[in-house]
Amino acid sequence: MGIIKGRWSFPIIRALMNGTMRFKELERNVSSINTRMLVKELKEMEAEGLVIRKAYATVPPTVEYSLTEKGQALKPVIVEIEKWAEKFLQ
Amino acid sequence: MGIIKGRWSFPIIRALMNGTMRFKELERNVSSINTRMLVKELKEMEAEGLVIRKAYATVPPTVEYSLTEKGQALKPVIVEIEKWAEKFLQ
Repeated sequence: MGIIKGRWSFPIIRALMNGTMRFKELERNVSSINTRMLVKELKEMEAEGLVIRKAYATVPPTVEYSLTEKGQALKPVIVEIEKWAEKFLQ
Repeated sequence: MGIIKGRWSFPIIRALMNGTMRFKELERNVSSINTRMLVKELKEMEAEGLVIRKAYATVPPTVEYSLTEKGQALKPVIVEIEKWAEKFLQ
């Protein structure tokens, strides 16, 4: 169950389910996370093989994040959590 | 997503899905948790309305835990997590 330990894993996966995102977009899409926490969580999720980080040598540099197959496969989990949350967390 | 913050919530819910358990049984069923952590986690889960605690004035005292409707409703989430874990965490 290591994967669900991160406070922010689920909101980040939720955001990336819509496709690749730049760091800044991700920051806007995951409510009430600060930059330091987002960096930390993304590093952990990359190490766990949930997320791929791609950096492009543009000016300014572009960094994009997307889900791996392992990350994408968590979609049914998130769907069930959202159903549950809708019913029980009002 | 508050519910998934506890490191041990899922293994505890998993164990209680089979029915009511005494504290000691729960401790045996949730691998590698210590007594202090189990007490702490159960208190949090009780406060979140996931678990019901019943104490009986027997000698020695009996304490039983079971899932509320809200806790039971997490079953599909756990099923999906287990499917995912089986595929990706070997």
